[in-house]
Amino acid sequence: MIHFRPVFFVIGILLTTLAVVMILPALVDGAAGNPDWTVFAASAALSLFIGVSLIIGNWAPHFNMDVREAFLLTTLAWLVAAGAGALPMAFSGLHLSFTDAYFEAMAGITTTGSTVIVGLDAAPPGILLWRALLQLLGGAGFMVMAIAVLPFLRVGGMQLFRMESSDRSEKALPRVAEVASGITVIYLALVAIDATALWIAGMSGFEAVCHAMTTLATGGFSTTDQSIGHFHSAAIEGITTVFMLLGGMPFVLYLQAVQGKPRQFFRNSQIRGFLGLYAAAVGTLVLWQWLSGGESLAQALRDVSFSVASIMTTTGFTTVDYQTWGGFAVVTILFLTVVGACTGSTAGGIKIYRLEVLYSTAKAQFHRIVQPHGLFVPHYGGKPIPDQVASSVMGFFFLFALTFATLSLALGASGLDFLTSLSGVATAMANVGPGLGAIIGPSGNFAGLPDSAKWFLSLGMLLGRLELYGVFVLLWPEFWRG
Amino acid sequence: MIHFRPVFFVIGILLTTLAVVMILPALVDGAAGNPDWTVFAASAALSLFIGVSLIIGNWAPHFNMDVREAFLLTTLAWLVAAGAGALPMAFSGLHLSFTDAYFEAMAGITTTGSTVIVGLDAAPPGILLWRALLQLLGGAGFMVMAIAVLPFLRVGGMQLFRMESSDRSEKALPRVAEVASGITVIYLALVAIDATALWIAGMSGFEAVCHAMTTLATGGFSTTDQSIGHFHSAAIEGITTVFMLLGGMPFVLYLQAVQGKPRQFFRNSQIRGFLGLYAAAVGTLVLWQWLSGGESLAQALRDVSFSVASIMTTTGFTTVDYQTWGGFAVVTILFLTVVGACTGSTAGGIKIYRLEVLYSTAKAQFHRIVQPHGLFVPHYGGKPIPDQVASSVMGFFFLFALTFATLSLALGASGLDFLTSLSGVATAMANVGPGLGAIIGPSGNFAGLPDSAKWFLSLGMLLGRLELYGVFVLLWPEFWRG
Repeated sequence: MIHFRPVFFVIGILLTTLAVVMILPALVDGAAGNPDWTVFAASAALSLFIGVSLIIGNWAPHFNMDVREAFLLTTLAWLVAAGAGALPMAFSGLHLSFTDAYFEAMAGITTTGSTVIVGLDAAPPGILLWRALLQLLGGAGFMVMAIAVLPFLRVGGMQLFRMESSDRSEKALPRVAEVASGITVIYLALVAIDATALWIAGMSGFEAVCHAMTTLATGGFSTTDQSIGHFHSAAIEGITTVFMLLGGMPFVLYLQAVQGKPRQFFRNSQIRGFLGLYAAAVGTLVLWQWLSGGESLAQALRDVSFSVASIMTTTGFTTVDYQTWGGFAVVTILFLTVVGACTGSTAGGIKIYRLEVLYSTAKAQFHRIVQPHGLFVPHYGGKPIPDQVASSVMGFFFLFALTFATLSLALGASGLDFLTSLSGVATAMANVGPGLGAIIGPSGNFAGLPDSAKWFLSLGMLLGRLELYGVFVLLWPEFWRG
Repeated sequence: MIHFRPVFFVIGILLTTLAVVMILPALVDGAAGNPDWTVFAASAALSLFIGVSLIIGNWAPHFNMDVREAFLLTTLAWLVAAGAGALPMAFSGLHLSFTDAYFEAMAGITTTGSTVIVGLDAAPPGILLWRALLQLLGGAGFMVMAIAVLPFLRVGGMQLFRMESSDRSEKALPRVAEVASGITVIYLALVAIDATALWIAGMSGFEAVCHAMTTLATGGFSTTDQSIGHFHSAAIEGITTVFMLLGGMPFVLYLQAVQGKPRQFFRNSQIRGFLGLYAAAVGTLVLWQWLSGGESLAQALRDVSFSVASIMTTTGFTTVDYQTWGGFAVVTILFLTVVGACTGSTAGGIKIYRLEVLYSTAKAQFHRIVQPHGLFVPHYGGKPIPDQVASSVMGFFFLFALTFATLSLALGASGLDFLTSLSGVATAMANVGPGLGAIIGPSGNFAGLPDSAKWFLSLGMLLGRLELYGVFVLLWPEFWRG
């Protein structure tokens, strides 16, 4: 039997937290004299009421959370957070439909960053702040989930990241809580540093804070329709590139570095793989752009290093329309979109460690083919990969491909063209933001899509954020049985 | 140490066989009064000379073939066969460049069926027959390789198809030879039946024979630029649909049916998966076409059942331009392109049994997530899947995706657009034939591609036909060491 009480209890805490955070945009709108402050106040009151009711109604002196409760909680938490996040959007002066408001909130809380709002530059400050706060919270929530929940659920190879003490269950929880709070402090500190840097580089204080939050969350919501390109500033682009990359790497390594073990950082195989792939992609595309005569070397370096960081870290800010770089760049961008960055960060996508595990396993298979009687064990980070982990990662890869195909067909059936369908699903499932093509490309907007496509893409964002299994397992009939 | 002598000996036999087969188009061209007969005669003489030299030079009373020799032989055999096949093309009245001749021959011997020849309707009969013969030989060669070589090399899950007696090595070879010759007889018998049916339905005798050969080989070379669409005959399309489907299913099951075990056929899990997926795809697309008002129900059924059979069996004949059916159809076609048909047939692609193994493995993982302490073993065809087989199949899937991405980037770098790059690689690696888009789509032709793209696609065809590992293992340095 599934215990719903602890699940609803935590959902209550989540809603209460969101209600408290909603006071911030209410204050900002109030100070700016924007009538939307009443919408935020009302949404906060409603969320608070439901949240507190859930807490009181499901309170118990002792809770028992098992694997199935944890799965139910994660999916429900994201669905409810998107619902609460959509409230102020739907009733604000922007007059978004329910579909649009839910899509925008889901793109926020999953740190995807696709937007259906046209005219951000003229939007009231409360909504802009709320979008940034949703991404900030979503990024933190995702990192906590990756530390505290997924490793115990043996999903998609995440069991590689169980902490050493996690097998002795009586010590696991305090240690997880300690790491989670340490990471949250570092996350907020990096946001503060980024905001200060952006402010010095010329952004207004409000713009700097909003962009810093969506940068470290690798979310990519901006306060302007032209995204970072609006500022025409090499300094702002450079700062944002650095902090996007920081947002795409495992935060637990920053914690270790602060605690006096900085060497771990460059010894980490995910970091090496991530920075290596980033350098290779930037080098290739800069050469391509420069040799094809499209841009000067300096301009190519500036545009490429920013765009590749934005795509690989799954942030999704844009400064230029990289589709004008030609077929090679477009194909590169599509594949980098699904690759993603490191696990343990706020970034989405298939993730570097999974590709490293797959590569290592394929390598061992080549060895076995050439020497059928030899014993070859794939390794990751210097340790042998258990069979269960390898097949868990490969299962994830297959499930990703299958989901990708199914959602692409659904988008095609919604009337979208080939490039929009494929890149739309890729950008949603990897939580990146912009797609490819004229409609949802870097200069486009998701507003023009049919409602069915927006719901399919919202589902794609949720599936990607919860690493597929988190959602799919709930559709499994046996999950609900004894 | 690798023993080159037995490898060269078999290559000699291959070249001699090709030389003998070249006499057929020489005779046809001679009878038609076409001067190209001298080209075929000269090519045959050259191939015969090299072939016999290799046989004599490497003759030995006793041969020792090990895993590595088998790998070297398979890749070399396909490369050499394409080279010999290109000879008459390059020197014929068509005046193809070496690149074009090699591409066309590779598309023949791998039963892909992409063509660079414009004006097939006016081409001399010798060349048309030679293209069909290359596919006939390629199809037979592939089936023999899948029975006699791949299962012993533990590649991509093919070890599932080792025959029961194959572990007692002294009995393995005679049994393999018996099955291989049985399959070859059935293959030729089906070609004869198909040719007779096509002739009765209205094709000329020559057209009927050529098309029957490329149908059962799931190759798709035609004698006209409009492919099967040229004949405007529902009967010809229906017959071809049936024989394409027959060409895409395991020939060993026909052998068993003839030997009095017909029940095996519909119990086979590949057959069920293949026909089930075919029915589902046809049903969906017919409904789609009919409801969207594009075609009458009867016309939609005729066009869709043919096109889906052509793509899924990796044949590549066309009757209509399915790209006009809209984004949903185009995305469906792209995914069906890589799925392919059954192993043990002449068809390419990822293949049904691999998808079934992947699905079964993913299912077991779901079970394990919900009940972490239960024991769940994935099954295929009623038997448990050994860990090594599962990881071998998953390794194949990953390698396929990686190769797909790399070759797509190479095509993008050759200057091709997104749709042409992605679908070009898909159609080459799955040995289908036509791609998507204006250039290489069902109404298009590969002639207009840059030379670099033709070489990348030739490589893709070879990689796909040899199930990736066949080629990649040769690039592994340890393969060549002791």
